[in-house]
Amino acid sequence: MLEQIGEIDPPQRLLMGPGPVNAHPRVLRAMSADLLGQFDPEMTAYMNEVMALYRPIFGTENRWTFLVDGTARAGIEAALVSLVAPGERVLVVNFGRFGLLLTEILERVGAVVETVDAPWGEVVPLEAIAAAVERFGPKVVATVHGDTSTTMAQPLDGLGDLCRRAGALSYVDATATIGGMEIAADRWGVDVVTGGLQKCLGGPSGSAPITVSAAAAERIFSRRHVEHGIRRDDIDDGLGVRIGSNYFDLAMIMDYWSEKRLNHHTEATTMLYGARECARVLLGEGLEACFRRHAAAGRAVAAGIRAMGLTVFGDDRYRMTNVTALYIPDGIDGEAVRRRMREDFEIEIGTAFGPLAGKVWRIGAMGYNARKHKVLITLGALEAVLRAEGFSSIPPGAGVAAALAAWTDSATA
Amino acid sequence: MLEQIGEIDPPQRLLMGPGPVNAHPRVLRAMSADLLGQFDPEMTAYMNEVMALYRPIFGTENRWTFLVDGTARAGIEAALVSLVAPGERVLVVNFGRFGLLLTEILERVGAVVETVDAPWGEVVPLEAIAAAVERFGPKVVATVHGDTSTTMAQPLDGLGDLCRRAGALSYVDATATIGGMEIAADRWGVDVVTGGLQKCLGGPSGSAPITVSAAAAERIFSRRHVEHGIRRDDIDDGLGVRIGSNYFDLAMIMDYWSEKRLNHHTEATTMLYGARECARVLLGEGLEACFRRHAAAGRAVAAGIRAMGLTVFGDDRYRMTNVTALYIPDGIDGEAVRRRMREDFEIEIGTAFGPLAGKVWRIGAMGYNARKHKVLITLGALEAVLRAEGFSSIPPGAGVAAALAAWTDSATA
Repeated sequence: MLEQIGEIDPPQRLLMGPGPVNAHPRVLRAMSADLLGQFDPEMTAYMNEVMALYRPIFGTENRWTFLVDGTARAGIEAALVSLVAPGERVLVVNFGRFGLLLTEILERVGAVVETVDAPWGEVVPLEAIAAAVERFGPKVVATVHGDTSTTMAQPLDGLGDLCRRAGALSYVDATATIGGMEIAADRWGVDVVTGGLQKCLGGPSGSAPITVSAAAAERIFSRRHVEHGIRRDDIDDGLGVRIGSNYFDLAMIMDYWSEKRLNHHTEATTMLYGARECARVLLGEGLEACFRRHAAAGRAVAAGIRAMGLTVFGDDRYRMTNVTALYIPDGIDGEAVRRRMREDFEIEIGTAFGPLAGKVWRIGAMGYNARKHKVLITLGALEAVLRAEGFSSIPPGAGVAAALAAWTDSATA
Repeated sequence: MLEQIGEIDPPQRLLMGPGPVNAHPRVLRAMSADLLGQFDPEMTAYMNEVMALYRPIFGTENRWTFLVDGTARAGIEAALVSLVAPGERVLVVNFGRFGLLLTEILERVGAVVETVDAPWGEVVPLEAIAAAVERFGPKVVATVHGDTSTTMAQPLDGLGDLCRRAGALSYVDATATIGGMEIAADRWGVDVVTGGLQKCLGGPSGSAPITVSAAAAERIFSRRHVEHGIRRDDIDDGLGVRIGSNYFDLAMIMDYWSEKRLNHHTEATTMLYGARECARVLLGEGLEACFRRHAAAGRAVAAGIRAMGLTVFGDDRYRMTNVTALYIPDGIDGEAVRRRMREDFEIEIGTAFGPLAGKVWRIGAMGYNARKHKVLITLGALEAVLRAEGFSSIPPGAGVAAALAAWTDSATA
């Protein structure tokens, strides 16, 4: 049986779901470079370059801007377990599956969690967050930026101010928006933001960029506890409660990324090469140009969906630009449509979770795939598939035409 | 400044330290394949192939043989946090830095830890482990297989039996030996074994292969707690204490790798491609042939060192085959030697930790680098560098000649 396991040779799929999406070819090529020793001067220079490259992407001047070695979820857990000690109060802004995930992780950390909620498809008003902060007195406020499960993007201007006035630190999970919508850590005034490569950054899952404010770093370093095997005279332990994870101990990880170069994990070199190239691709295009491209793609997808007589899900004012959900029409088998899309057109569109399972599809246009031709191809294929599945009321060609017009309008807007 | 951050272009280093080492070119090429959606049938087929490929590498029939998305340390923490509930007793077999790391991780998990120790450079006799198990009554016994900090490989035959008789589960960190020395999970009778790619498997750090016995899986599933956002009627929570980490919750990760395909993290596709190719390279060569190649390299390194009049560190009976430590001669600046090796020969050899810091170097010959010419080149360079640094007593050419003879003897033995 093992002899039959041949060379890696995946089919050429167009990934237009909520992520992962196709990686940018430059990113995959960068990842084919050979390895370096982890304390090699060239390797540590690359690490420093990664720190510099991700600061503008997070919209921050934070010194502590680096990578956590794992998927986006690893970044989330590293942030929360390092910020929050057992028994501390945390307010979670909850408007979808990934708000629930924050709660779930925080419960395991031992936090006392309260949520301020919005129904799936809406966001939480800033005033509601302010009232909950006042009532609950949290030490940390945690929120998702864009929740792909609902396609909503939570507005975050003003969040940092209200947290600081209440003496709380703030955390933002920007996995699904980083590189596609503006992340403004400093302007928002938030303390820790984490992301992932596999959506708008156009890389593979497996590395989680993170930025940590000076105030958050101070709290985290107060919990520093250096491993017995590598203690040094120049690094003192903090007085705070030891962080409940070794792998996700941001104090140790920051010491590793600092000029101290205190050994922790063995940096995932190939993923670091990939993360570095994701950032170079993005900054080479320009942040604003990249956000405009994602916005054009999102408008084109929505216009195409509507022109086909289908209904876009969620509050239009707060929809993410890079993923769009649409209702599965009555009488249509959503999974049969996804199967035909994959088998006949080699295109993947997304299913849904929880209350939206079986009710909506999600079409992403992220990173390398937030391009005009990929949006048009996807909508053309969807029209053909819907018709084959018996949904015959689509005006022929209407989706593609409307998407093309919307893209062109966006480009000249 | 950002404009000056150019294409990835690392120098061509020969990495002859304790890992990471140079990746096998086939592994890097496999990692350049484009991505797939995480529930795409082709992707889940690749996941199943990875499970099949790693069973012989771990020497096991365990169904639960898969990857944890993170560095080798992530695999260790996932194993320990999932096996051990707070307050439970764990015995750590401690003979180097990575034994200390197990203790450190377990303390954060909330375990009650006792160690059974050997000085650095020795291993722990099975009878000492047996006596400690009897005295302490642990629920889990945890040990490192090969500890690169001391170059010692702990003998593990019989460990599983003695643990099972005492009602304990067992864990082995095989990061530094997997692919280079035999891992015999089933013959040893141990329950959980984890590894990493960046040493004898010839891949980059960032993915941790793991195998879990039926007994360990049962204990872990008894602690299952499905996330609120993705609960399903067909998956029940267990009665055990919830696992203290979401990311490292092996119950959820096993559900993700099972036919249930319960969503957890987004699998790190490119790292999975790499892990899959590491296994294909290894099994293509053949496990026994690969172990023999590592053994020949280790014998050649040691013979070369001795012929140069230098002293190998540690108990010869238990030295790992793939990494060899040697004392830095009196009057020689160890870091100056490493710098010259890097700057003049583009070769990296390793420094040391803790009680061995400044006392020994470590020369690895692992994975793609466990080859005759690389061992000979390294020893030749070391001779030249030592002479340049004032250590002039080496018989010219003796190290290379002895290594070559030892390699040839190994090959015909």
